[in-house]
Amino acid sequence: MRQSKLFGRTLREAPAEAQTPGHRLMLRAAIARPLAAGLYTWLPLGFRVQKKVEQIIREEQNRIGAQEMEMPVLTPAEIWKQTGRWEMLEPITFRTTDHNGREFMVSYTHEEFVHLHAMQELQTYKQLPQIVYHFQSKGRDETRPRAGLLRVREFVMKDAYSFDVDQAGLEKSYAAEYGAYERTFERMGLDAISVESDTGAMGGDVAHEFQVLTEVGEDRIAICSNCDYRANLEKATRHMEDERARADGVPAPSQIATPGTESIEALEASLKLPRDAFLKTLLFRDQSGKVVAVVLPGDRDVNEAKLRKALSTGEVKFASDADFAAAGAVRGYIGPVGLKTPVLVDAGVGGGGYIAGANKKDAHLRDVVLGRDFKGEPVDASDVREGDVCPKCKVGKLSIERGVEVGNIFAYGTYYSDKMRASFVAEDGTHKPFVGGSYGIGVGRSVQTIIETHHDDKGIVWPPQVAPFHVHVIALPVNDDEVRAKAEALVMELEKRDIEVLYDDRDETAGVKFADADLIGIPLRVTVSKRNLKENAVELKPRSASDTEMVPLAGAAARIADIVGSWPR
Amino acid sequence: MRQSKLFGRTLREAPAEAQTPGHRLMLRAAIARPLAAGLYTWLPLGFRVQKKVEQIIREEQNRIGAQEMEMPVLTPAEIWKQTGRWEMLEPITFRTTDHNGREFMVSYTHEEFVHLHAMQELQTYKQLPQIVYHFQSKGRDETRPRAGLLRVREFVMKDAYSFDVDQAGLEKSYAAEYGAYERTFERMGLDAISVESDTGAMGGDVAHEFQVLTEVGEDRIAICSNCDYRANLEKATRHMEDERARADGVPAPSQIATPGTESIEALEASLKLPRDAFLKTLLFRDQSGKVVAVVLPGDRDVNEAKLRKALSTGEVKFASDADFAAAGAVRGYIGPVGLKTPVLVDAGVGGGGYIAGANKKDAHLRDVVLGRDFKGEPVDASDVREGDVCPKCKVGKLSIERGVEVGNIFAYGTYYSDKMRASFVAEDGTHKPFVGGSYGIGVGRSVQTIIETHHDDKGIVWPPQVAPFHVHVIALPVNDDEVRAKAEALVMELEKRDIEVLYDDRDETAGVKFADADLIGIPLRVTVSKRNLKENAVELKPRSASDTEMVPLAGAAARIADIVGSWPR
Repeated sequence: MRQSKLFGRTLREAPAEAQTPGHRLMLRAAIARPLAAGLYTWLPLGFRVQKKVEQIIREEQNRIGAQEMEMPVLTPAEIWKQTGRWEMLEPITFRTTDHNGREFMVSYTHEEFVHLHAMQELQTYKQLPQIVYHFQSKGRDETRPRAGLLRVREFVMKDAYSFDVDQAGLEKSYAAEYGAYERTFERMGLDAISVESDTGAMGGDVAHEFQVLTEVGEDRIAICSNCDYRANLEKATRHMEDERARADGVPAPSQIATPGTESIEALEASLKLPRDAFLKTLLFRDQSGKVVAVVLPGDRDVNEAKLRKALSTGEVKFASDADFAAAGAVRGYIGPVGLKTPVLVDAGVGGGGYIAGANKKDAHLRDVVLGRDFKGEPVDASDVREGDVCPKCKVGKLSIERGVEVGNIFAYGTYYSDKMRASFVAEDGTHKPFVGGSYGIGVGRSVQTIIETHHDDKGIVWPPQVAPFHVHVIALPVNDDEVRAKAEALVMELEKRDIEVLYDDRDETAGVKFADADLIGIPLRVTVSKRNLKENAVELKPRSASDTEMVPLAGAAARIADIVGSWPR
Repeated sequence: MRQSKLFGRTLREAPAEAQTPGHRLMLRAAIARPLAAGLYTWLPLGFRVQKKVEQIIREEQNRIGAQEMEMPVLTPAEIWKQTGRWEMLEPITFRTTDHNGREFMVSYTHEEFVHLHAMQELQTYKQLPQIVYHFQSKGRDETRPRAGLLRVREFVMKDAYSFDVDQAGLEKSYAAEYGAYERTFERMGLDAISVESDTGAMGGDVAHEFQVLTEVGEDRIAICSNCDYRANLEKATRHMEDERARADGVPAPSQIATPGTESIEALEASLKLPRDAFLKTLLFRDQSGKVVAVVLPGDRDVNEAKLRKALSTGEVKFASDADFAAAGAVRGYIGPVGLKTPVLVDAGVGGGGYIAGANKKDAHLRDVVLGRDFKGEPVDASDVREGDVCPKCKVGKLSIERGVEVGNIFAYGTYYSDKMRASFVAEDGTHKPFVGGSYGIGVGRSVQTIIETHHDDKGIVWPPQVAPFHVHVIALPVNDDEVRAKAEALVMELEKRDIEVLYDDRDETAGVKFADADLIGIPLRVTVSKRNLKENAVELKPRSASDTEMVPLAGAAARIADIVGSWPR
C-alpha cells in the first residue's frame, strides 16, 4: 500500500476533546473518525486492525466448535416484548417504526432472536450442545459517549450463544468460552483479567467480565490483596461484621434540631460524629414510576447497578419534589421513620442506633433502630471501597482499580427459554428448556484498549499480531531514482512473501516520515535511504525498541521475513 | 463440520409463502431464515456462501486499488439534510430519534458520509484518484418485501465510492469498477449483463445496473434485437416518429357525449377507435404535495420511476378527490384542456388531434391538439414495450425481459460535492469539487440469484467457488464402526489439505442423506458405504452431473484434492 494514496491523514495534534491517550492516538494516526458523537468510521488503517482482531476472535470461537452466522440489526418489537426487554431496554436503545406502524429495535443484543432460531433449528438433545455466534452492529443510546471507541453509540460486537441440555452442559460451554476469551485477549495483546460481574439486563446470576486494568477505564474493579476475588463494583460485596451495639438499651428515637444541616457532611461537621453514625436515605423512581427509599450507612454511596438489579428495572432516577411530598419526606431531612414508600435497607446498616432525618424541616431523629423504628427489605445497594474486607477469604483487603471491559460472559440458564417457551425434546422424550449463556466481545473497544495499553509518547506500538501492516518501508528521499527503485523492489519482494507493507512514497522530509511511522506504530520500520544505499544496506528498526540494525540490501527481504515469521500469530 | 451438529435444519417442504424456486430452496436448505418480513438471518451454511461472495467482491475491489473501510449504520440527519435526501428518502427509510431528540437514519447508502470523510482526509490532487468501499448493513423500508432475499428490508451492501479530479478521471474510475463488476459476477457464477439505468435517488445522469436475466426478477429490461442497447424500463426510451397528421386542418375541439365511459378500454370499445387515438390524463401528487397532470398516448402506461425523476421527487401518489376538484377535473373524464394544474406531456404524444376527457361528467372532447388546445412541459414518462423501435440504432426492435439487479454503478459527478462544498486543492492551486461515483452490490441478493440460476428439481447446484463446502462426505450407515472410522479418517485427510468438508454423520437412511445432499448442493458428494468399502473404494459424484466415479480408498483424498483444485476460484 502506497502511503501517498492512503485514505486517512495523520494529524499533528489531536482534537481538544480527545479524552485519553488512546483516543488521541486513534484520531491522530487515522485509525477511526467520528461521524457524530459516538458514531465512528474505521478508516482503512483502523479497518485492517479491526479485521485482525475480528479474525483472532473468530479463530478462537471456531476452535471451541462455535458456528458463525449472522442475525440482522433491525429486530421486531414483538419478540422483545415476550421477555419484557422491549420496556426494560427503552432508555438505552434506538427504536424505529416502519411506514405500517410496526416497531423495531436497532438491536442491543440478540438473545431473544437466537432463541427463536434455536426453537426452529434444534429439535432434539442429539443436536446439543451448540454454540453459535456472529459479528454484528449494535446500537446503544449512550447519553454520554466518551473517549473515542471506549464508549460509543454503535459498535460491532461478537456475540456468541450457547445451548445446552442442562446446567452441567452450560457450565462446560461457559468454561469453553471462558478459555476462548483468555486465548483471544492474549493473542490480541491484551492483559485481560476476569472479574465477577453484574448480569445487568441479561438475566441469570453468573457472569464474568474481562477487564483490562488501566486508569482510562470507567469501570471500577475490587481486587482482593489475599485471594483471587475480583469483582466489578456493580457486583462486588464486602465482608461485614456488625460491630455496632445491639439495639438493646437504645432509648426511643428523639428529635434533635439541625437547622440548615441538609447533608451527611454538614451533620458530620455540626454534630462531630463519624459519618457511619448517620443513615443516608435516598428516594428513587424506577422505570415503571414506582418510588422507593434506599437507606444506607452515612459513609456509603449507593451503587446504581446494584439498585437497578434489586428493583429489576432498567433505569433509576432521583425522585421529584412531588415524589418527596407524596412520601411525606422533606429534602435534606429525609429519614426512614414514618416514610410512606417502600423502603430498601442496605446490608451495611447495622443493629445499633443511628441519627436519621426526621422528615421535618431542620430536624433529625437520634436513636433510630432498624427493625424497631423502621422496617425495610434488605438489599445490597452500596459501593464497596478501598480497604473493605474481602467477602471471599474474609481476610484480604480490597483495592479498587479502573478497568475497560473488553468482553463479558453470562450464564443465564433458562431465563430466555422459559419466557419464550423455547424447548427441545430431551432423551426421556419430554420437552425441556434450553439452558443457555451469551458471550460478548466489543471489537472497537478492544482495538482502542490495545492502543491505550500499547503506546509511548511518540505514538502507537502495535502488537505485531494486530498491526495494520507488518512493515513500514520508508524511502528517503523518494525523488531519488535509485532510492525509489530499490525501495519499490524491496516492497515487491516483501509482498511476494505475503508480508504486509505500508510504503511511504510521499515527498516529505525524513522528520515527517519518521514521526508518522512512530505515530502509526507498525512493528518494523525499514529505511531505504541514499546514505544506506551507499553501503548497499537498509536500516531496520523495531517500533518497540530503540536499537537499529543495518542489513545488506540483498538479504533484506529474507531477514525481514525471518523477523516477521518470529512474531506471535 | 459434522452435519449432526449443524445449526440449521433442512425442510422437506418450503413454507407456502415462498415465491420463487430460489426462495423455496434457500429456506429448505437452511441458507437463511426470516426473523420478520424482509429481515433475514444467515444460518451457518448460508453464512459461508455469503462470506465467499463477499470475498470475491473484496478481491476484485482490491485489485483495482480500492481501500476497504467501514462507515456506521446510524447516520445523523444534519448531513442528509445538506443534500436534500433526508426528505427525499423518507418514504423508504427507517429513522430513529435518540433520547436527546437528535435524528438518525438507518443508512440507506453512504454518499453523504464518504464525502464528509473525503473533505477531511483528501486535501490535494496528489491524493487522487481514490476509491474506498465497505460492506455494511442498509435499511430499506420496503412496503412489500418479496421472494426471500431478492427484496428485503435490511441487507449488506458492498458500496464503493470514487473520487477524481475531473470528469475524465471519473470515467476511468467508472470503467475500472465496471470491469471489476464483470469479473466479480463471473467469478460468483452469475451471468450478469450491464444495462443503462435510472439514477434514481443517487443524482447524476450516467448509471448502469448489472442484471441477471431470470423470470423471477422484478425489473424489466428492454433489449435491442439489433444493437447492444440494453436498458431498465425505468430508463429505456424508444425511437419515435410522429406519424400523426399535423394539426393543420384539425377543427376546434368539440364535445362528445360518452356516458359511463370512464377508461381508455371503455372508450376503445364504445368508439371503435385504436387506443392511441385517445389521450390518457393522470393526476399525481408528489412528495412535497404538488399536484401535476401527466398526459400520455392512450396506449401507453406511465412509468413511475421516470415520472419521479421528471418531478425530482422521492415518491408519487395518485391524487385525491380533493385534488381532482381543485384541478377542475372529474374522475373518468379528466383531460388536459382547461386543467388547473401544471401539465406534463409525454414525448409519445404527437401533433395530431386526440380524443381526451372534457373535465365534465359523461363527456369527452375530440380534435384536441397539443400546443393549440393545451400546453405542457415535455417529459419522458411512459413505459416502452415489446416491439418498440430501439432508440440507439433506430432499426432493432426491443424485447422486454425480466431481471434481478445484483449491482449498480452511478457516475454522479459533482452532485454531492457541490451540495456539501466538498473540495480539494487542484494542481493550479484553486479549490475544485470532487468528481465522484458510487458502486453497489447486494450480497444477499447475489446469493439468492445464484440459487435462482443454479438449481435443478432436487435442490441447489452451487458453483464451486461460492459453495458452502467443497465436499459432502456421506457415511452409510454411520453406526457401522468400519464405515465411521474410514469416513472420519477421510474427512481428516481432506481437511488437512484445506478442503472444506460437510460430514454427514447423522443416523439417517441413505434416502434422507442423498436427498439432503442434493438439496444443499455441495459440488462433490463422496459416499463411504459398507458396500463400497468391500471393494476398498469410495464413490464420488459431482452435484452437477449424474455420473459417478469409484476411486480406491487409498487414493481418494488425492483424487478429491485434484478435482477441487481444478475448480475456478
